Amino acid sequence: MAKFYFEDFQPGYTAEYGPRLVTREEIIAFAAQYDPQPMHLDEVAAQKSMLGGLGASGWHSCGIMMRMICDGFMLDSASMGAGTVEEVRWQRPVRPGDRLTLRLTVLEARASKSRPDMGIVRIRYEMLNAHNECVMTMVTPAMFGRRPAEASS
Amino acid sequence: MAKFYFEDFQPGYTAEYGPRLVTREEIIAFAAQYDPQPMHLDEVAAQKSMLGGLGASGWHSCGIMMRMICDGFMLDSASMGAGTVEEVRWQRPVRPGDRLTLRLTVLEARASKSRPDMGIVRIRYEMLNAHNECVMTMVTPAMFGRRPAEASS
Repeated sequence: MAKFYFEDFQPGYTAEYGPRLVTREEIIAFAAQYDPQPMHLDEVAAQKSMLGGLGASGWHSCGIMMRMICDGFMLDSASMGAGTVEEVRWQRPVRPGDRLTLRLTVLEARASKSRPDMGIVRIRYEMLNAHNECVMTMVTPAMFGRRPAEASS
Repeated sequence: MAKFYFEDFQPGYTAEYGPRLVTREEIIAFAAQYDPQPMHLDEVAAQKSMLGGLGASGWHSCGIMMRMICDGFMLDSASMGAGTVEEVRWQRPVRPGDRLTLRLTVLEARASKSRPDMGIVRIRYEMLNAHNECVMTMVTPAMFGRRPAEASS
């Protein structure tokens, strides 16, 4: 049995996950593989870039966020995936040594008209650094299975 | 000198990059680190999932796309970053052995009002598999430096 079903994500529900330490090594390793722009790879080049110093690829931040979502609740949920991301905003650089926390807020929740076993939950995620500055936001409609009758008691 | 400046991305401009082979090993390696849902890690579990077989994490697909963007033109451009993604759609699973191509289409291009050295280019990316099926789309406003006078002759 999953722990989290559609019914657990009511509008206004919030949760917080983390903190998750981000290391220089993983910033560079991710960038070398997926986003080899100098500002994500090399401190000297990064100083001269718009990041003003080494910072994680925005797609690395997305991966870190996804891992925090998985560990926070997704792997213990009746998740049915998400085919869309409405919006991603990278608001501040993610730096080596940052400790990130993730805040989840349910914006909307509605039962599926075509699939009675499923509901759609529109979620806003905000990733914060240790200074409580928002480094990234994402809004996504996620699909979750509905709680079976025997599990609702 | 960069090869690609704001002026090179006129509305309607298209380009294609790739192909890029996706391996089972990298699908599993990415998932183990950033998105450890069984459908991205294990063939048997994936068969029973909504993917109907092992498929890459959507965030892995984003990383692959970013790498194709970097290799395709970004590293050779006057890129000034992108703070936002308007939309990501994961339309079909990305499978082990897929050879992906990336199609770029410029939707809009406008000079920055506040920064005369910069322009904003709204780009749609479509990632296609070898069957010419679209596996993923992304729309993002990217910032590019303007071509210096001495480089335009």
